[in-house]
Amino acid sequence: MNRKLVIGLDLGGTNIKGALLDRNGNILFKKEVATLAQEGPEAVALRMAGLVSEFEAAAKTDGEEVIGVGIGIPGLPDQENGDVIFAPNLGWRNVPLVKLLKKTVTVPVLLENDANVAALGEQWRGAGRGSQNMIMITIGTGIGGGLIINGGLYSGTNGNAGEIGHTVIDPAGPLCTCGRQGCLETLTSAMAMKRMAEEAVARGEKTSLAEQKEIEARDVICAAREKDPIADKIVNSVAHYLGIGIANMINLFNPDTVVIGGGVSRAGDILLNPLRDSTRKWSLDASCRVVKLALAELGNDAGCIGAGRLVLNRLGHQH
Amino acid sequence: MNRKLVIGLDLGGTNIKGALLDRNGNILFKKEVATLAQEGPEAVALRMAGLVSEFEAAAKTDGEEVIGVGIGIPGLPDQENGDVIFAPNLGWRNVPLVKLLKKTVTVPVLLENDANVAALGEQWRGAGRGSQNMIMITIGTGIGGGLIINGGLYSGTNGNAGEIGHTVIDPAGPLCTCGRQGCLETLTSAMAMKRMAEEAVARGEKTSLAEQKEIEARDVICAAREKDPIADKIVNSVAHYLGIGIANMINLFNPDTVVIGGGVSRAGDILLNPLRDSTRKWSLDASCRVVKLALAELGNDAGCIGAGRLVLNRLGHQH
Repeated sequence: MNRKLVIGLDLGGTNIKGALLDRNGNILFKKEVATLAQEGPEAVALRMAGLVSEFEAAAKTDGEEVIGVGIGIPGLPDQENGDVIFAPNLGWRNVPLVKLLKKTVTVPVLLENDANVAALGEQWRGAGRGSQNMIMITIGTGIGGGLIINGGLYSGTNGNAGEIGHTVIDPAGPLCTCGRQGCLETLTSAMAMKRMAEEAVARGEKTSLAEQKEIEARDVICAAREKDPIADKIVNSVAHYLGIGIANMINLFNPDTVVIGGGVSRAGDILLNPLRDSTRKWSLDASCRVVKLALAELGNDAGCIGAGRLVLNRLGHQH
Repeated sequence: MNRKLVIGLDLGGTNIKGALLDRNGNILFKKEVATLAQEGPEAVALRMAGLVSEFEAAAKTDGEEVIGVGIGIPGLPDQENGDVIFAPNLGWRNVPLVKLLKKTVTVPVLLENDANVAALGEQWRGAGRGSQNMIMITIGTGIGGGLIINGGLYSGTNGNAGEIGHTVIDPAGPLCTCGRQGCLETLTSAMAMKRMAEEAVARGEKTSLAEQKEIEARDVICAAREKDPIADKIVNSVAHYLGIGIANMINLFNPDTVVIGGGVSRAGDILLNPLRDSTRKWSLDASCRVVKLALAELGNDAGCIGAGRLVLNRLGHQH
């Protein structure tokens, strides 16, 4: 039996997740190791290569063959040269990642942005199964986006498409990490929720959040569930702006599916109900009518699964 | 000689423009008639069919054959059934346009939104020649948009993609004709400029525009050139918001080209210089670096040329 397997890696700021997958996207074996980016790109690449040879050995034991490795990176890839142009969470600039891996890895290695591979994963095996035109928005510390157009991943002219988090929704809004004002990310991310809560406490507003030493987005969600008025205001503001951001995508792309992922998406109905209302309110009827809003289904596996899909999309036809 | 020609029609609220085109997009013959929408869809279809038979007769005289008719409509098409679902400027809802034409027209007839065919036209023969990923934004009374992705027209799940004019840039902004607030259209169209000027006059602001009986967008542009402070403020506000809207598209699509068309785009440097500055300021560097901002080149012919291209794209391979 020779099923021709693929390896998907998801390189994050904290961990490197990896999976060995069959052609249908079933995970046969998975493993996670610490990234330890502070040790430098060569050490990180060595750890990634270690995962690859473990997966290859596992495949061999079963008499199977690996056709390639896909990698989701937290930044901007140069796909032609296999370089990481910029990955702020790793502190990388112009790192020749594929070259470093090729010291030991013999099969083809492909790079793609992590939000893009997550979108591919959800389209293949998650909430976007069967979708032709899909937008995935990942709401965590920051906000990522991935676009599936005419059935395939659309990554733009130089791999930089899908920066939903840096579309401007309110030009008079708060400063964003990117240096602009009122980006979706600075109005709706976990970081934004934390900041709004801290500002409210600093202003001396009456809120249960004031009792906490360190406020995280999940604390704001919990307090909102317990009807804390400040937390409630923050969650509704996030839902309001997020709905506008998603409606803007709907009005532009006329997608069949919008998949919402990331930690903030797990807030449940307290966020999702006002978010659905806001999205509906700000979308054009003709496009709103045909779009399905869905929560991501693959959780932390989306990146690895999508990275594996990348390999099948680009190399699968040769096998 | 049998070059197999195409007919492109551009159905507008005032006029129906038509052109007979060869396979390279050269206009062999063009003609324009009044739409007279108040006479009803059947009368309009009859006038369109009249144009088609004139073009077919002209082709025949030269021993050539027409392979199909493409039509740009000012609204939302149902491409499968050949219906116009909605065209507000014509007062049309669910008009079976292709069926009406088929009473006399024997070759295939294809419908597409007018902003989309204009984008196709500019990509084929205008400012977007050679572009793979292009956004066209048309700034007239309203604001239209068309998207070229991976070399082809992208019209979305039900033909409604590209509604750039109804992306929200400032949720606290003025009311839009669509019922929402702060859409790009209500901040930057010719209608918006007229409204802002009229409001300034009504407030009693000191401006040369107060002397005019009826203020149009072009009057605002002229007054701004003559350093009228109110007109200057309006033009700068339009450039500011338009730059944000275009930057949002750049951050999302990472296009190689943005084509700006429509009456307002002919305002010249007084608008275009601050517009370029605003677009640069609000775009992400990685995407801004690879995009070309260009003015539309085909003027009023873009629609007919793009409608002809539509026919070649969908039927050309059969001939």
